[in-house]
Amino acid sequence: MKQEDMKRYEDWKFKMSSYEMALAIIGIDKMTVAPRDGATYRDKRTAFLSGELFSLETDKTMLPILKEIQEDETLDFYLRKEAKLYEDSIMKIVSIPKEEYVEFCNLTDSSYEAWYKAKMTNDYSVFEPYLKKIIDYKKKFYSYRNSDKNIYDQMLDDFEPGMNQEKYDDFFDLIRIRIVPLIQDVTKAKQIDDMFLHQKFSIKKQKKFMEERLLKYLYFNPTWGYQNETEHPFTSWTCENDIRVTTKYLEDDLTSAIFSTIHETGHGWYEHNIDPRFDGTILSNGVSSGMHESQSRFCENYLGRCDAFWKANYPYLKEVFDQELQDVDLQDFIRAINSSAPSLIRTEADELTYPIHILIRYEIEKGLFNGEISVEGLDETWNKMYEKYLGITPDSASNGILQDVHWSDGSFGYFPTYALGSAFAAQFYYQMSKDIDVDGALENDRYIDCINWLKENVQIHGCLYDANTILKKATGKEFDPNFYLDYLAEKYTKLYNLNH
Amino acid sequence: MKQEDMKRYEDWKFKMSSYEMALAIIGIDKMTVAPRDGATYRDKRTAFLSGELFSLETDKTMLPILKEIQEDETLDFYLRKEAKLYEDSIMKIVSIPKEEYVEFCNLTDSSYEAWYKAKMTNDYSVFEPYLKKIIDYKKKFYSYRNSDKNIYDQMLDDFEPGMNQEKYDDFFDLIRIRIVPLIQDVTKAKQIDDMFLHQKFSIKKQKKFMEERLLKYLYFNPTWGYQNETEHPFTSWTCENDIRVTTKYLEDDLTSAIFSTIHETGHGWYEHNIDPRFDGTILSNGVSSGMHESQSRFCENYLGRCDAFWKANYPYLKEVFDQELQDVDLQDFIRAINSSAPSLIRTEADELTYPIHILIRYEIEKGLFNGEISVEGLDETWNKMYEKYLGITPDSASNGILQDVHWSDGSFGYFPTYALGSAFAAQFYYQMSKDIDVDGALENDRYIDCINWLKENVQIHGCLYDANTILKKATGKEFDPNFYLDYLAEKYTKLYNLNH
Repeated sequence: MKQEDMKRYEDWKFKMSSYEMALAIIGIDKMTVAPRDGATYRDKRTAFLSGELFSLETDKTMLPILKEIQEDETLDFYLRKEAKLYEDSIMKIVSIPKEEYVEFCNLTDSSYEAWYKAKMTNDYSVFEPYLKKIIDYKKKFYSYRNSDKNIYDQMLDDFEPGMNQEKYDDFFDLIRIRIVPLIQDVTKAKQIDDMFLHQKFSIKKQKKFMEERLLKYLYFNPTWGYQNETEHPFTSWTCENDIRVTTKYLEDDLTSAIFSTIHETGHGWYEHNIDPRFDGTILSNGVSSGMHESQSRFCENYLGRCDAFWKANYPYLKEVFDQELQDVDLQDFIRAINSSAPSLIRTEADELTYPIHILIRYEIEKGLFNGEISVEGLDETWNKMYEKYLGITPDSASNGILQDVHWSDGSFGYFPTYALGSAFAAQFYYQMSKDIDVDGALENDRYIDCINWLKENVQIHGCLYDANTILKKATGKEFDPNFYLDYLAEKYTKLYNLNH
Repeated sequence: MKQEDMKRYEDWKFKMSSYEMALAIIGIDKMTVAPRDGATYRDKRTAFLSGELFSLETDKTMLPILKEIQEDETLDFYLRKEAKLYEDSIMKIVSIPKEEYVEFCNLTDSSYEAWYKAKMTNDYSVFEPYLKKIIDYKKKFYSYRNSDKNIYDQMLDDFEPGMNQEKYDDFFDLIRIRIVPLIQDVTKAKQIDDMFLHQKFSIKKQKKFMEERLLKYLYFNPTWGYQNETEHPFTSWTCENDIRVTTKYLEDDLTSAIFSTIHETGHGWYEHNIDPRFDGTILSNGVSSGMHESQSRFCENYLGRCDAFWKANYPYLKEVFDQELQDVDLQDFIRAINSSAPSLIRTEADELTYPIHILIRYEIEKGLFNGEISVEGLDETWNKMYEKYLGITPDSASNGILQDVHWSDGSFGYFPTYALGSAFAAQFYYQMSKDIDVDGALENDRYIDCINWLKENVQIHGCLYDANTILKKATGKEFDPNFYLDYLAEKYTKLYNLNH
């Protein structure tokens, strides 16, 4: 292909990656330290920068060059795949008028502020009008695509290519059939004592365990990653060597910050381990939301909650909290961190009830976009579904519909990938356990061996292969949710001595 | 004027302020938390964004519109002044080719890294080649202006409009004549005991005093300002309501972080108090470096080191460090924080020896640009001048030439404004003491009354008036360095019981 075209292509990618970097850092700053009163000033200008990025991302004049690259068989496979992904991405948004996109960015900024205020004041009505506007914008944006596909199907596909309501319905039906009764059995069984996890645990001491032990055990390295605190933990990044995770410490919950950190650093590892030659390009991303979540949940649940992990770490935790944990032995602790009970907050839910939180969000999103559920009174709808599936009713909007930030920026279709991620993770875990001695690694401070398996089999590829191909390459099988359901059934049947 | 021109003008300003905001936040992030290994990736992209800003800042097609605004007498004075400042600023840089400017931004980024490494490893030779390149670029950039003025004179004028070597020579001659002998007398006099300031002071406790008392006493409000830690404290901002200051805690120095914070929040107040209608425009800046420094030094020295300030604050400090300060009464403390002795580090220098640190830097900069001093062996030159003026020799390059970050980004001509700022501050202090009861305010937790005097007389104007006009409006007099020299002579003669 023409050298000048390749030069133009490289410049275009570089410019996009520059705006992406700026927006990532501005976003991290906003979520961690930026003074609140400056938000309006900053948000307006952030919207302008998003608009500049958007102009590049929807630059139709790049389409012929992208075609040219895909057709040039002398080029590396990864370059041609990259061009294909850019082309797909342009085609998805090219029809949205730039002014509307900038308006939407402004809206999501103020919507975030409204969500935050609503949550702080426990008042859904503050957030409701923003939520309505966001949904209207999303519907309008998708209508521009002129696809015959149902709008929510398109949203699902955007986060998890290949997925739609039909497939998710099957997946969540399985969860409904196998997990809901299992939760009921667990609820009726003899309960595990986990009250000792909810004493008063000095945040200063929690940070000591975090900084002096856990982050080191996780091989999370300050030269390429740093940790900060936010209300809602997240992971962000600008390149291989710049990964940011956040956490939130709760004084009355010993393990909230711990598992949130194992989870977020799991996302962080994914981005850090992508082949660095993809840095600054569309290939340097997790391949799908479900795949991203599979990596974080793998770390959090499949590694972070197992016996071997805590054989290595519990002595340190016990040393820091020598008073609080003096009567708690390793087995008590492990049983407690794996105990299950219906609860209100998704991010603090246990492994077994977690997919039900997602099921509820999936049904609400489906209803919102298919016209069966209304934004008005959505807090009530939410509460009723928690009653129906988990047998509990939120005591407040902050512990109900306002708990998650996701809808404030219009991320509909994202939640379902969280449950899918857990299911992918189960399939990876099955295979990893055949390939390496997972328990041995965890017991001997070699967490990195598990990460390296994920790196080689999943992470290094970035977006080079789609999620299903990665699953098949790594495990020899197509995606099969039964790995996940079997894993949950076996684990909780054993933990609660159920008669199955 | 034409409405479409005004619209274009507003858009242009808005775009510039957007890039400025992004670059400010990326800069703060870099200096505080960004993972080091990601620097190369980020710096390249930051340079691109700087280039975009540069293109806007040097957009010659704006010149006719700027002229039009200045000539339109129906417009507000401040809009016409604003247009004049934009025009001046375009004319200053319009001749620099964009590629060279981007190269320069890349260079300053890597130069910062080199300076940091040199300082950490105590090795000037790591930084030397970068310093040389930076100077060459600066010379080249100024040569593009085609001015008959000496290059260093132009640099001085950029930071402090109206100043040049002739005027600074006069100013520093006065300092040399009056301050150098005063320092010698002080050195010979009976020394004040300040050893107790250099016990081991837990940083945790220092932070407690900072967060629970000092920042509150200073009326520094977290809704519009936040504090972080960096190796070299600085102040940054994006708008009226987004002010960031940093500090550095030293375990063996009780007051380093305290005075650095009073100083940096002084800069912060200036930016916070500028008329908010100027937000996002060229008027929303301190009018000159000297004026900026006058505000920070006013807070640090004229307020922060006086009896009344510590009558209000010492009891709190003593409560936090009850063991360490148990035998130190208020007067001992005040004498110690005002004691003077030649020392190596500018930012930790006392009020009396401080201008000599600046004198040395001024002479070096002058020599570097006039060809009388070479970059090679500059560490030695530096050491000799400290020997000559202060009678002490740096024990290492880190405590000598590598101590300041300024030259790593090419800020030559900036240092002299630090001494000028102290002198401006003396003139403001003289007037403020006539207008309000400064001691009464400080003793009664009304620091804000002093800040409000500065706001009304200096800060609110932003760049609307030049430094000399502000001095004259505020004090009724042109700039007169004798306020400063008299203040120092009187203060230190009394403190050390000198026979003058």
